[in-house]
Amino acid sequence: MTATPVWEDETVVAEYFLQSYLPMADAAAALAGEQSTATFVAVPGETQALRDRHAARVVGVEAVEPQEDAVLRGSLRPEQAALSAARVRVAFPLRNFGPSVPNLMAAVLGNLFELRELASVKLLDLDLPAAFAERYPGPQFGVPGTRRLTDVRERPLFGTIVKPSIGMPAERLAALVRELVHAGIDVIKDDELQGDPPHLPFDERVRVVMREIHAGAQATGRMTMYAFNITGEIDEMRRRHEHVVAHGGTCVMVCMGIVGLPALAELRRESAVPIHAHRAMLGALIRSVGIGIEFRAYQKLARLCGADHVHTSGLGNKFYEPDSDVVRSVRAVLTPSDGISPALPVLSSGQTPRAMPATHARLGTDDLMILAGGGILAHPHGAAAGLRAMHEAWAAAQTGESLGERAGRSADLAAALTAFGGDA
Amino acid sequence: MTATPVWEDETVVAEYFLQSYLPMADAAAALAGEQSTATFVAVPGETQALRDRHAARVVGVEAVEPQEDAVLRGSLRPEQAALSAARVRVAFPLRNFGPSVPNLMAAVLGNLFELRELASVKLLDLDLPAAFAERYPGPQFGVPGTRRLTDVRERPLFGTIVKPSIGMPAERLAALVRELVHAGIDVIKDDELQGDPPHLPFDERVRVVMREIHAGAQATGRMTMYAFNITGEIDEMRRRHEHVVAHGGTCVMVCMGIVGLPALAELRRESAVPIHAHRAMLGALIRSVGIGIEFRAYQKLARLCGADHVHTSGLGNKFYEPDSDVVRSVRAVLTPSDGISPALPVLSSGQTPRAMPATHARLGTDDLMILAGGGILAHPHGAAAGLRAMHEAWAAAQTGESLGERAGRSADLAAALTAFGGDA
Repeated sequence: MTATPVWEDETVVAEYFLQSYLPMADAAAALAGEQSTATFVAVPGETQALRDRHAARVVGVEAVEPQEDAVLRGSLRPEQAALSAARVRVAFPLRNFGPSVPNLMAAVLGNLFELRELASVKLLDLDLPAAFAERYPGPQFGVPGTRRLTDVRERPLFGTIVKPSIGMPAERLAALVRELVHAGIDVIKDDELQGDPPHLPFDERVRVVMREIHAGAQATGRMTMYAFNITGEIDEMRRRHEHVVAHGGTCVMVCMGIVGLPALAELRRESAVPIHAHRAMLGALIRSVGIGIEFRAYQKLARLCGADHVHTSGLGNKFYEPDSDVVRSVRAVLTPSDGISPALPVLSSGQTPRAMPATHARLGTDDLMILAGGGILAHPHGAAAGLRAMHEAWAAAQTGESLGERAGRSADLAAALTAFGGDA
Repeated sequence: MTATPVWEDETVVAEYFLQSYLPMADAAAALAGEQSTATFVAVPGETQALRDRHAARVVGVEAVEPQEDAVLRGSLRPEQAALSAARVRVAFPLRNFGPSVPNLMAAVLGNLFELRELASVKLLDLDLPAAFAERYPGPQFGVPGTRRLTDVRERPLFGTIVKPSIGMPAERLAALVRELVHAGIDVIKDDELQGDPPHLPFDERVRVVMREIHAGAQATGRMTMYAFNITGEIDEMRRRHEHVVAHGGTCVMVCMGIVGLPALAELRRESAVPIHAHRAMLGALIRSVGIGIEFRAYQKLARLCGADHVHTSGLGNKFYEPDSDVVRSVRAVLTPSDGISPALPVLSSGQTPRAMPATHARLGTDDLMILAGGGILAHPHGAAAGLRAMHEAWAAAQTGESLGERAGRSADLAAALTAFGGDA
């Protein structure tokens, strides 16, 4: 007999955006039933006592404006029925699954997406009892550990992404890293498309890069952090992490949406360096209004599983996401919640000096990693000038100076503003 | 220097449903660029030689009817621009990522979902070069191995899902398994919500269930297959698999969409029994017309990573999916492709005897696992009668007899048809 756990009576509260052509109470009940004790017919053994202990319960329904364009195929639609929409909060007894991220996911993110009673279903947020943070260690380095390793204070960490993403020969990569390190860059990361290709295998990439980083550190006194993309099979990730650490590397990157949160948690158990969590593929879950998962819910699970750096996209990004979403994502990553420490938000995608004033004004924090790939590497005077332009733009934002004004004193910034015109 | 791999010049062809308010050629080029050599500005080093070797290429565009209701938020929409839709085939050089499922996913399923140039983006199918099937072992048991273990020939495997999903005490579970085993059931599976809860911890569940199964096998001469849901953290899955095998169990189940394909591949490396792959959470990727992944593409990767049984939903299911989708999914799972062996399709969700004639007629094969949870357990004469009713319904379908006619000779079937009325 197992002792009753202290969390026996706790609940997880999941908040959803739901739409339905059925009465919302029925639609919400279908979700709560499917995800706990019920099935499509009454079965022997689904007693009142069992339901009392194990049924998920709808604990809040707040009507919101219906969105016809977010209706999913296959939704039940009784004749003449109107679409209704609500934010619905469902409480799941923790005793059904315990403080396990995968088993939690089966409950709050499982079959419910397939319910025909629901015309839209998106997980918006999760309130987790303390048992999760007690079981999962959370970020090992987070903001303070990453600042310590890079020796950056009172400003964001600035970095770049190796571009072209793929196909770069070893000599060119070495030269690029050398240039960036000597220019004083804080962070360089692999593109998420860079894995273990024959033209530059992972192990060789690590050797080539770390040679330059160690040599640069001798000159500059600072170790540039390089986020090596170790995304791969579980055993490969383990081996690649060891290889990075053996060569003195200080960061590994994984595409969390591809490898899965259990793989992230497994890596966290062994990792000696910060885990940089890229969000490739998560767009499939977060972009639709009608189905999927809001990023603020997902990032909480990612932090729980040990992500130190979490990609949030950036203000003025090249992708679909409006700045308001990015601001919300960044704040979520930086907010301690449910006993889980913050991670360092990584602002990436189409970042150039032009994005800095809004980034500073809307986020109001220095606890950011800002990655500009093309925004640094495509600077007309070279990558070092590209980095200086980013610093200039941030410094201007900190002092309330306009970019135009600052560009009068900074040729690098002026060139960047010309090169990266447009709406960024 | 690594030797040039034999697959150096191969490509992966990914087929997408795309919509855009830009000219389709531009939209498709944005996808191909983002997912290979390009970024939002030209960068030094993106030479013609590099593009020639590494750029993804649009190799087919077939216009289809636009679907306004599948448009995603944040899509670029020049004034007056009309929506166009196409099936677009993109060829990705294998040399960019090699035969690695996670690195392939970063290319064909990565940032592209976030592209504002695309108003819809769904992966429909994948053509994989032989290098994948050469590296990944695929299903270890598949259809023949599962038939061998269960001793079932010339008919589908019939099974049930333990319901209520959660909260059932050990004694009741033991009694239920005993009844089902003696009734001659082929397969029993945990509900996907069943993990390692305090009221019946995983290890105890295995002991309780396997005691009944071994005792039943003494009486019936056949081992019922029980798919234990081992979904959890990586180390837990490994340990739970060992525990199942140590107790003589013959199947483990994982929620593949939750644990991730690398975790599935890792399990496959060590597994001594068939892996039953549940699709909880995959609805978030497959239901929307405008974003995500078609199941036929996903199941190919799942088979590659070692899934022996793949959930496809069932005809007349309780969820959103039309039978036509289910038929396509089942056929995909059963079709050898790209050197990957078939898996056994698992038809589940709202299955009752009523679904058997259409299942037989439309699928035309016995190579199925048909799981009825409520459809067996809620039979008014008990689970054994529920199982007999399923067999009767299949036998009727095989001989072209109607269910009504057969029910005249089978009280169990007659009772099932009455109990499970409706449109199933």
